[in-house]
Amino acid sequence: MQVLHIMNKKNKKSVVLLSGGLDSATTLYIAKNKGLCPHGLIFDYGQRHAKEINCAKAIAKIAQCPFQVIKVSFPWKGSSLLDKKKNIPKNRNIKNVEVEIPSTYVPSRNIIFLSFAASFAESIGASSIFLGVNAVDYSGYPDCRLDFINAFQKVLDKGTKAGAGKRKIKICTPLISKTKAQIIKIGLKLNVPYHLTWSCYQGKIKPCTTCDSCRLRQKGFDAVGQKDPSLK
Amino acid sequence: MQVLHIMNKKNKKSVVLLSGGLDSATTLYIAKNKGLCPHGLIFDYGQRHAKEINCAKAIAKIAQCPFQVIKVSFPWKGSSLLDKKKNIPKNRNIKNVEVEIPSTYVPSRNIIFLSFAASFAESIGASSIFLGVNAVDYSGYPDCRLDFINAFQKVLDKGTKAGAGKRKIKICTPLISKTKAQIIKIGLKLNVPYHLTWSCYQGKIKPCTTCDSCRLRQKGFDAVGQKDPSLK
Repeated sequence: MQVLHIMNKKNKKSVVLLSGGLDSATTLYIAKNKGLCPHGLIFDYGQRHAKEINCAKAIAKIAQCPFQVIKVSFPWKGSSLLDKKKNIPKNRNIKNVEVEIPSTYVPSRNIIFLSFAASFAESIGASSIFLGVNAVDYSGYPDCRLDFINAFQKVLDKGTKAGAGKRKIKICTPLISKTKAQIIKIGLKLNVPYHLTWSCYQGKIKPCTTCDSCRLRQKGFDAVGQKDPSLK
Repeated sequence: MQVLHIMNKKNKKSVVLLSGGLDSATTLYIAKNKGLCPHGLIFDYGQRHAKEINCAKAIAKIAQCPFQVIKVSFPWKGSSLLDKKKNIPKNRNIKNVEVEIPSTYVPSRNIIFLSFAASFAESIGASSIFLGVNAVDYSGYPDCRLDFINAFQKVLDKGTKAGAGKRKIKICTPLISKTKAQIIKIGLKLNVPYHLTWSCYQGKIKPCTTCDSCRLRQKGFDAVGQKDPSLK
């Protein structure tokens, strides 16, 4: 019965949002480790650089995970992650991110990404959506917090054909309350290919080391006493 | 003070989802009639025909309403509205739509549309999103019901920068509990250009008269004793 149980689990399709970063790569490997069959969803949304899209594809490939790339347009801009004329904030106080939402906030980005994940999950018959949001070592975005995830879960329960029937779609956020160091520890155990991940908001040859994302990542690797393999 | 009050209202930006159909056109005119400043949002999502997109643009223009067209891809298909190889159901029992969600259901469509509306609303500083969903004379889609709208309202309250601050974004669904006849009565009073609207799921020269959408529309015009101006 144990074997059958594992086999059933292996047949369980799941949608995993992939950004090319450390958190979503770890989330993908957590889903794989649970015996699920993850399907990656990658967004080309006019971000400053294509580097993270290429990293996301490379991670999906090495994890032997089928994936879809969705092109999404944000014609209204309004974020320094979309508009190259705007500067990315440098050396912000990452201990106190909730005081001010930074200019890198993309209006309603995770709402849009989860919406497409819901559609994809309904279409392929997936029973879960895995999302690497984190509300500890993060930039203070409102769409990374548990309150938001719980609200979106209700949207899936009430607004999808799957939710109206017996087969619900569950949003899973295994990293939401973990520190970056805890995430990296889990990832190292699961052999997440961190050398392929890209967290920097800039798309230069090497990470800038000054944006929120670089600094949170560095803080995590420092805490576990490891060198970031993407910097080698 | 009354004049100032009206002026403030006129300066209030609102996002209105426009599909080219009768309900969304009526919703646009309701928002205008409230003294709001509606901004149309139209989706090119790979629907069977471009007719409804052109109608939506024509309605926005005649209403002197600025608008954006967003291209959205649904690479996974899964609906007869997206896939021309699938047949549109004919002469369904429209009195008992909740028994079975039809093949015209597009997975998570309104979730995706509302997500973009949220992003647009945040970017232009709009305080409301108007949506012409209807849970009386409709095809039984789960994403047209009040439970879903209420759930999505919480997503906006919890997951947007606007929601995290003082300026909330309110979802307004003025038609949700009205019959098609009641909607048409309101629209006729507000001079909605029904001759420019298109409801048929097919994109032929004339409406097919047999799909859910044609039949619900015809039932509405019959009940108010008017000829549908789009059939003239």
